Amino acid sequence: MSNTFGRLFTLTSFGESHGDAIGGVVDGMPAGVPIDVDFIQRELDRRKPGQSHITTSRQEADRIELLSGIFDGVSTGCPIGFIVRNQNQRSADYDALRDVFRPSHADYTYLQKYGVRDHRGGGRSSARITIARVVAGALAKLALRQLGITVNAFTSQVGNISLEGDYRDYDLSSVEANPVRCPDARKAVEMERLIAAVKAEGDTIGGVVSCVIQGCPAGLGEPEFDKLHARLGYAMLGINAAKGFEYGLGFAGSEGRGSQQNDLFAPVTEGNDSQDVKNPLRLQTNRSGGIQGGISNGEDIYFRVAFKPVATLLQPQSTVDIEGKQTTLEARGRHDPCVVPRAVPIVEAMAAMVVFDEYLLQKTSKM
Amino acid sequence: MSNTFGRLFTLTSFGESHGDAIGGVVDGMPAGVPIDVDFIQRELDRRKPGQSHITTSRQEADRIELLSGIFDGVSTGCPIGFIVRNQNQRSADYDALRDVFRPSHADYTYLQKYGVRDHRGGGRSSARITIARVVAGALAKLALRQLGITVNAFTSQVGNISLEGDYRDYDLSSVEANPVRCPDARKAVEMERLIAAVKAEGDTIGGVVSCVIQGCPAGLGEPEFDKLHARLGYAMLGINAAKGFEYGLGFAGSEGRGSQQNDLFAPVTEGNDSQDVKNPLRLQTNRSGGIQGGISNGEDIYFRVAFKPVATLLQPQSTVDIEGKQTTLEARGRHDPCVVPRAVPIVEAMAAMVVFDEYLLQKTSKM
Amino acid sequence: MSNTFGRLFTLTSFGESHGDAIGGVVDGMPAGVPIDVDFIQRELDRRKPGQSHITTSRQEADRIELLSGIFDGVSTGCPIGFIVRNQNQRSADYDALRDVFRPSHADYTYLQKYGVRDHRGGGRSSARITIARVVAGALAKLALRQLGITVNAFTSQVGNISLEGDYRDYDLSSVEANPVRCPDARKAVEMERLIAAVKAEGDTIGGVVSCVIQGCPAGLGEPEFDKLHARLGYAMLGINAAKGFEYGLGFAGSEGRGSQQNDLFAPVTEGNDSQDVKNPLRLQTNRSGGIQGGISNGEDIYFRVAFKPVATLLQPQSTVDIEGKQTTLEARGRHDPCVVPRAVPIVEAMAAMVVFDEYLLQKTSKM
Amino acid sequence: MSNTFGRLFTLTSFGESHGDAIGGVVDGMPAGVPIDVDFIQRELDRRKPGQSHITTSRQEADRIELLSGIFDGVSTGCPIGFIVRNQNQRSADYDALRDVFRPSHADYTYLQKYGVRDHRGGGRSSARITIARVVAGALAKLALRQLGITVNAFTSQVGNISLEGDYRDYDLSSVEANPVRCPDARKAVEMERLIAAVKAEGDTIGGVVSCVIQGCPAGLGEPEFDKLHARLGYAMLGINAAKGFEYGLGFAGSEGRGSQQNDLFAPVTEGNDSQDVKNPLRLQTNRSGGIQGGISNGEDIYFRVAFKPVATLLQPQSTVDIEGKQTTLEARGRHDPCVVPRAVPIVEAMAAMVVFDEYLLQKTSKM
Repeated sequence: MSNTFGRLFTLTSFGESHGDAIGGVVDGMPAGVPIDVDFIQRELDRRKPGQSHITTSRQEADRIELLSGIFDGVSTGCPIGFIVRNQNQRSADYDALRDVFRPSHADYTYLQKYGVRDHRGGGRSSARITIARVVAGALAKLALRQLGITVNAFTSQVGNISLEGDYRDYDLSSVEANPVRCPDARKAVEMERLIAAVKAEGDTIGGVVSCVIQGCPAGLGEPEFDKLHARLGYAMLGINAAKGFEYGLGFAGSEGRGSQQNDLFAPVTEGNDSQDVKNPLRLQTNRSGGIQGGISNGEDIYFRVAFKPVATLLQPQSTVDIEGKQTTLEARGRHDPCVVPRAVPIVEAMAAMVVFDEYLLQKTSKM
Repeated sequence: MSNTFGRLFTLTSFGESHGDAIGGVVDGMPAGVPIDVDFIQRELDRRKPGQSHITTSRQEADRIELLSGIFDGVSTGCPIGFIVRNQNQRSADYDALRDVFRPSHADYTYLQKYGVRDHRGGGRSSARITIARVVAGALAKLALRQLGITVNAFTSQVGNISLEGDYRDYDLSSVEANPVRCPDARKAVEMERLIAAVKAEGDTIGGVVSCVIQGCPAGLGEPEFDKLHARLGYAMLGINAAKGFEYGLGFAGSEGRGSQQNDLFAPVTEGNDSQDVKNPLRLQTNRSGGIQGGISNGEDIYFRVAFKPVATLLQPQSTVDIEGKQTTLEARGRHDPCVVPRAVPIVEAMAAMVVFDEYLLQKTSKM
Repeated sequence: MSNTFGRLFTLTSFGESHGDAIGGVVDGMPAGVPIDVDFIQRELDRRKPGQSHITTSRQEADRIELLSGIFDGVSTGCPIGFIVRNQNQRSADYDALRDVFRPSHADYTYLQKYGVRDHRGGGRSSARITIARVVAGALAKLALRQLGITVNAFTSQVGNISLEGDYRDYDLSSVEANPVRCPDARKAVEMERLIAAVKAEGDTIGGVVSCVIQGCPAGLGEPEFDKLHARLGYAMLGINAAKGFEYGLGFAGSEGRGSQQNDLFAPVTEGNDSQDVKNPLRLQTNRSGGIQGGISNGEDIYFRVAFKPVATLLQPQSTVDIEGKQTTLEARGRHDPCVVPRAVPIVEAMAAMVVFDEYLLQKTSKM
Repeated sequence: MSNTFGRLFTLTSFGESHGDAIGGVVDGMPAGVPIDVDFIQRELDRRKPGQSHITTSRQEADRIELLSGIFDGVSTGCPIGFIVRNQNQRSADYDALRDVFRPSHADYTYLQKYGVRDHRGGGRSSARITIARVVAGALAKLALRQLGITVNAFTSQVGNISLEGDYRDYDLSSVEANPVRCPDARKAVEMERLIAAVKAEGDTIGGVVSCVIQGCPAGLGEPEFDKLHARLGYAMLGINAAKGFEYGLGFAGSEGRGSQQNDLFAPVTEGNDSQDVKNPLRLQTNRSGGIQGGISNGEDIYFRVAFKPVATLLQPQSTVDIEGKQTTLEARGRHDPCVVPRAVPIVEAMAAMVVFDEYLLQKTSKM
């Protein structure tokens, strides 16, 4: 089951970096959702390589082919199969890696696990396989659009440059205005310069993506193992290079006291009646990050995902071959110096899948 | 499926704080594992309330009853049903809460989700339901014992008091020597004092639990959605009051560069042959936290879990009733001023379940 | 996962014939269903041993203990844990079987599968474990009651005595009037005599249970692998001693032609407007058994389950011990000469679980 | 989850009769299995339309494209994505069916379930979607080949013409020698004539497929819900037009007595030591069909699947339109007069998937 994600709205994916195609099956899409194919392609375009001088120069058209489950422009309730052809592989770039383990890559662990390994471009451990996540996330977003639920992620940190405010301080619709996908234009420039400088050294750098889900009704999420934030964390930690997840006050909150962190309810007065049937009560603060006891409370849900610097360096590195003998790795290929900008749409995609899945589950929680 | 955890080794749990019993079913335990009932009870004792002056004064014997799946002292391969009776409920303590929503608790979200609510002691959102996790984790530990895999967690931070070293700097076998479960005896005293002081004010405080898994062979974990750290994160974030998860360098690593963070392989030389069939290659450093591409690499796996301060204060708080009218909450009941010490065995339990589950899955990854 | 049944409404069960208890967890029960505990007990009483001279003389009170998930008389949406204590075990009856394999029992196959075996009373292969199915089925029936869906099974064949008509020819409310659970009073007497005669010889006899589901809306069931009849078949074939399943015309229909078997729609005329929003169209015939393409069509769903004669004979039988040496088995213990009468409530329970589960799934099939 | 089949070895499929492609993802294939692409294509060729004068005249090349999960000719442990393009659709044949419900088809039930419907060629209810099953089954067979396990199905009945013997009486390698796939050459001619005659009348006819699994070790299958025969039954009943399943003596056995049906063990004597570590004990008879208590016992596993006559007739039929108004259906399109010959490879495919999945699960049943 390791290649299926979700409970009712599921993605089962396949594909490797240098295989014929990346693809998958989205099952559980309810019937009657208008399918905007251009939107799906635009989401893929946000993820694709070669968007700017600070991403990999691999050029891929990444054209979506939707193969089933749609008729007369709407979903039919049947599974949606899709593929995106790989086209710009340069597998020969990887010939030297057939018998060498790259440091901090999955080469050694795959071989230990499976006994065989597709060494070309990272095989299934390549970030290229997130294509399937973006397609499925775009489908989830089309369903969430019907419900008035939005998901917006952005780059909040690159290296030691981080935003000072939180999502409420920025216009998130401006995120696509710069190649870093940072809503603070000035910080975006700094981040871009840092990434370019790191790239020039053949090095890489880490960062953080923040995400906010808005318009989500109270009641989504399950009490015990499938707490909404646990499912979000699982979804995010499965993204390549993710190293941490926190929501609400997160790690910072573990330093503080309950009396400072509890979110008090806003009493319903005549002037303050939310009139919102989905979510009748509001809170005065939202330190909790929109979730109580694993279940959404109607406030904004926000979280952060830490990404490590990419392991592929364009510098010589000492490593070993499959015999364990010392050798020097001269990296080739086309790589991102920082995954964070391209991780933004992937974070959104995963969040959209989780929230829509929980929306469907919630339909079955009352008689 | 929200009350089932795991793929092949699964726990399905039930129970509420003030119901008749907490219990569950562990399915997928292979046949032939010696079942040490005393060990399971000791693990429960580590979790139970009333252990010290810094935990809740609720007194519960928390006696395990194993009802099936064991014969002649070993597991039979059949599901292991178990219950732990609730005995020391004082449901009347909660009468005042029938129509009131406690701030930063799950009262409101449960009612929005289900339309009905068991208000006594938090119902299923009570931390008491982690009993089932500890029992299942103890069973997983008994299986891991056969494999030489150990799981050790400890308190690494309470409020703003945190350990300066990492797990390698401490004797983890000393963790049970103090009520905080901190392997640094001096810091433990500070933490204990802080918790006592916070408790005296009717307040609560957060903290961090760190955990290390040792002896794990290379090859555990799945490439895509079920990356080993994604499953660990999911497991930890489902624990009551958890707000964040990170492994390896975690959030701190997102500030740095690839050239500083990559873990280089140790070449196999005559004097440095690990001779370890489970894990033939070793690394010179372990910044990755024992996992590459979602799969264990044979090094120690380590991670951290952030816990917020408990929401129940023994101070008056402003809140609202089910009509949304302002009211004042005068908390009663017996509560922990800091969940972290009692979270230690729960973190271990969840980690043990994940690792053993992946061990079983790994048996099927090669022909 | 082998001890969990269902997709959204799930039963995870545990227990062996001579262990402490049989029990389970029902997860996915929506909140707000009135829980009639007496009804659940009555369903268990229909299954329990010692009901008449033609069933086993093992006497068990089989008292249901519901441990969670219910508050103020209704389901809360949380998992419902339950146990039924074993009381009347006479494990010593089985001492002689510790090292002997009974013919056509699971003794040998369990040992081959697990390497260990609880030989007492069949362990987990005992029909006693169907207690958990009956409890979960009773909970499903309570939910179906809210929806106007009924499930009725009955004995339609014992040995070579079979009903001549189908379910439409009988008053199914009369099924409990005789110990065989046959709605044809005259045939019931014949069946009862046959069972008594077979029992007197220390022999056993097979039979067939028929079942009808009425009031089911059109639209339940899934197109591909989870066709409604495939799930029903799976559910029934998992019952101890089941050897076959057919629905609609079943095996008999494979002899005929399409022109004779197609069910034509009844045109909607002024006098024939079904006015039924759940199921606007009706059919002129129902040879299909209420299902088309795996999805209910609003007509009655009916099917048949074949049961083999019980393998335990009260006659000497030749068999082998664990060394493979020939020995003679002198069966002891208390056994049913025919499982069919007691299988009737189990068939109903499994059908109720499947239909209610599909009802929940159907809530998520349209936007 | 309705479009995913299996526990560890899973198929998730997609596609409709007149969409772009049929395809799927096989997950859980262990690494290291040689992938014989020609074999997979040959299995597809056995299923494809237009093979003979007694099948549909739709002509499809049905070329398999394997897109991932294979490297250097062996499986890598990563998911295997595949597609088969649809080419010979004549959707215009179905224009008249946009607003009409065909009798005994899934037209009405799909519309009731989903509110929308792809009316072209049956959409996802078309038997064409079994392509995905055959591909996944072929992959399972390649794995079973490594284990010496074989799966052979054949036509044992068409209309009222049925084989007199069972599988032991025939040379199953001769099944492909005639278009009916019947191992009795004389009966095959009769069956072929019957199908041709029925076709000439624009009518259809049902039949039965029998199947035998040989070389299966003792120990496969799970005790409770996932009994091996329950999983086989579920798999078979999901095939289009299946109406019944029985194994061992099946329905016929419900007429008999235990003393006549029990299978006695063959004592291990010096001349009769099976020397088979997979299966040390043998039985004198095999009325049980190779399964005891849901677990394989090492004997041949055999079962039968009933298929109804195809619902599409090339005769005028009375039916209704979506308004419920009476109309006459003049069927067009290219259809099989009898599905049974082409169901043979599908039955094999499903059986192979179940058995291999249980083989993988069995690897985890002992410590």
